[in-house]
Amino acid sequence: MAGQFIDYGQLAQVFDQERLGASIERLAKYGARDDGGVNRQAFTSEERLARAYLYDYAQQNGLHVFVDDFANMFFSSHSELDIDKAILTGSHLDSQPAGGKLDGAYGVIAALESLIVLNELGIQQRNPVVAVAWSNEEGCRFSPGAMGSRAYVTPELLYDYLDIVDDAGISVGQELETTRRELLRMGAKPIKMGSTPKAFIELHIEQGPKLEQMAEPLGVVTVVQGVYWFEVQCLGQAAHAGTTPMGMRDDAFIKAFRLISILMQWVEEKNTNDQLVCTIGRLEVSPNSINTIADKVVFTIDIRSSDDSLLQEFESLLAQQQAVHAQSISYQSLQHVDSTHFNDKIVASIQKACDWVNQQTGMGKAPEMVSGAFHDAVNLAAICPTGMIFVPSKDGISHNPKEFTPIDDLLAGVHALIFVLADLATTDSLG
Amino acid sequence: MAGQFIDYGQLAQVFDQERLGASIERLAKYGARDDGGVNRQAFTSEERLARAYLYDYAQQNGLHVFVDDFANMFFSSHSELDIDKAILTGSHLDSQPAGGKLDGAYGVIAALESLIVLNELGIQQRNPVVAVAWSNEEGCRFSPGAMGSRAYVTPELLYDYLDIVDDAGISVGQELETTRRELLRMGAKPIKMGSTPKAFIELHIEQGPKLEQMAEPLGVVTVVQGVYWFEVQCLGQAAHAGTTPMGMRDDAFIKAFRLISILMQWVEEKNTNDQLVCTIGRLEVSPNSINTIADKVVFTIDIRSSDDSLLQEFESLLAQQQAVHAQSISYQSLQHVDSTHFNDKIVASIQKACDWVNQQTGMGKAPEMVSGAFHDAVNLAAICPTGMIFVPSKDGISHNPKEFTPIDDLLAGVHALIFVLADLATTDSLG
Repeated sequence: MAGQFIDYGQLAQVFDQERLGASIERLAKYGARDDGGVNRQAFTSEERLARAYLYDYAQQNGLHVFVDDFANMFFSSHSELDIDKAILTGSHLDSQPAGGKLDGAYGVIAALESLIVLNELGIQQRNPVVAVAWSNEEGCRFSPGAMGSRAYVTPELLYDYLDIVDDAGISVGQELETTRRELLRMGAKPIKMGSTPKAFIELHIEQGPKLEQMAEPLGVVTVVQGVYWFEVQCLGQAAHAGTTPMGMRDDAFIKAFRLISILMQWVEEKNTNDQLVCTIGRLEVSPNSINTIADKVVFTIDIRSSDDSLLQEFESLLAQQQAVHAQSISYQSLQHVDSTHFNDKIVASIQKACDWVNQQTGMGKAPEMVSGAFHDAVNLAAICPTGMIFVPSKDGISHNPKEFTPIDDLLAGVHALIFVLADLATTDSLG
Repeated sequence: MAGQFIDYGQLAQVFDQERLGASIERLAKYGARDDGGVNRQAFTSEERLARAYLYDYAQQNGLHVFVDDFANMFFSSHSELDIDKAILTGSHLDSQPAGGKLDGAYGVIAALESLIVLNELGIQQRNPVVAVAWSNEEGCRFSPGAMGSRAYVTPELLYDYLDIVDDAGISVGQELETTRRELLRMGAKPIKMGSTPKAFIELHIEQGPKLEQMAEPLGVVTVVQGVYWFEVQCLGQAAHAGTTPMGMRDDAFIKAFRLISILMQWVEEKNTNDQLVCTIGRLEVSPNSINTIADKVVFTIDIRSSDDSLLQEFESLLAQQQAVHAQSISYQSLQHVDSTHFNDKIVASIQKACDWVNQQTGMGKAPEMVSGAFHDAVNLAAICPTGMIFVPSKDGISHNPKEFTPIDDLLAGVHALIFVLADLATTDSLG
């Protein structure tokens, strides 16, 4: 029983484009690139400055700041943090080396501003809203990605993560110590990881072209696609390109080509309604010489779907090809993550919120969306009811300084988030 | 009217496996690799030692040595070299960095030994036989290949070649000076390039599997395939592998894949009887990342045939694809050499010689062959009647330390060469 607690006119007056835009631009200064993008990789000095800024901003707005063992930052109206009762919202603070201002940062800004706005609007919170900034989602400096939210939900992984090093040989452990020390010195309170919130909501840019193509400002994410990664190796025999007749060749390139034909035909047959994506993004030929028949081709496959049975069927096809061509074709799995289906109640609350915002501008029902990218929300979904809201990405571009979303849509996203948070914070249906 | 001048029993006694094997092994010492192969790249110190050895060996056998402006070495029984009247035979002295003992070296050894044997047998030569060792056929240190024979037939190219440098920045001009100075100091006489011999015969290993597959010791080369090289570029738009639906992609890899499908289908349709070979040996994807849709794929095509109209038809197909996909597909020609059809009289003389040698071991008619590889003989064919004899390559392997031909076959090759030289040296049919 919520929503009625928010008056749209009042909300729009308290939180407008100007306030949101200014908040995004302030954070984007930390790691700003000359081309308008952001380079704020996990646990760098740029990211530590951004953390200090968030600390100060939260303090100025009457919030309390907490930090866990992986330097995930939490922001609450209360001086004691009780995550077990909290409606958690947020995203990640780090960016790609040539990233934009919105990927992650938008969800962090929106979380903090929502918490402040709910207080300004005087919404009484049965389940208090807590904002969070997860550490190292991008995974570009320290792999794998989504480490902060993963460590939060499975704290024993922390010990595996500490020894991971970047290209310069600096470890996660070293950087965590510096980062946490600075935050604790400022006044952030240490908290334990692993407590289960009542719910988690993440607002994020789509990073794909669908919302823009549909001219929709808001998307209700119901599923995050499963993603399987494979590396395939095809072996042949190097030989002279001029003197070896076609029928006497053992050409690794032709083998790879024929295998890819089979795989692509399967994709075409199965993908009747955009239920999967499949990408061959990396391919290397050996010896890679114009007049030598290839003796080895290695290529990768990135296949994603919200229907895990399709991913399994694809792997069976690969396994069958490997069995038939045991001497020359082999594959290994590099990643094997099944799809995540978000909690029905959370999805319903998000749908209601998005429809409510759409209604203000005469738009209809917000579309349901499948997320093609991985998010911190996937990790949180393992321990609590979780959901996501998407706003459009111009031309589907992300991980790029050109990443852009119109301010109208960014504002609609935060308004929807505030509605959802008010709904969940005041309901008793989450138990 | 020749052949009758050679008595096979006498020839086999004068020139046997032992003498041939020893001669090959002596030359193979210069640039010997630990794995049994040879690394004797053009104009290196190893190659200069091999030249000094050939000079001494020729001297010891009563021959005179000459050197032209590209350091091509000529060997004659006469103290004055009159190439206009000569039956020229030979091959190249240089090897690949990881080459074998036979590619080129076999033809040089065979030429020198044949000249000596003809003298031992007392064959009177109306057209005197002259042996030659061409410089830089492989082209691996200084590109392009077959430079020595090319400069010989087109002397004005010398000036273009002088400034070509290797990876260390050393020029052909510098190395030519050192190489020629050493030879002249030893006593080699300088000669001009460009004189037209009566004929040129090259004995070479096949570098392909056909003779071995047919269990034939000798092949009569009638044609050297034409070879066209292309580099093809396919452009797309980089995007996120997870968030970009299949129908909204501009995937450079898929474009390259579809183009290759069209090209390979053409090859399959046209290559009904081994009249062409086509190789995609190099392919590079950009940015070559597992979860990013490719924005660029560049690949090469090496296509060869003795039927130039097939090569032209293939290029038309490529040009048509470029025209249809003008925004995304483009190609450039990297090499464009039409096929070389050897002189009928020379081919007939070689056929007679090979059949004569085959007869001694109860074999039948030697097969006609298409050469898949380029040879110095292609350059000579532009100025004089030319032909080639092939002997088998085990497993078709060449440009490899494992390059191997049974000594019986190597001996058959030299015997056939001696027969051809005796035939041409004593005939008046070449005018």
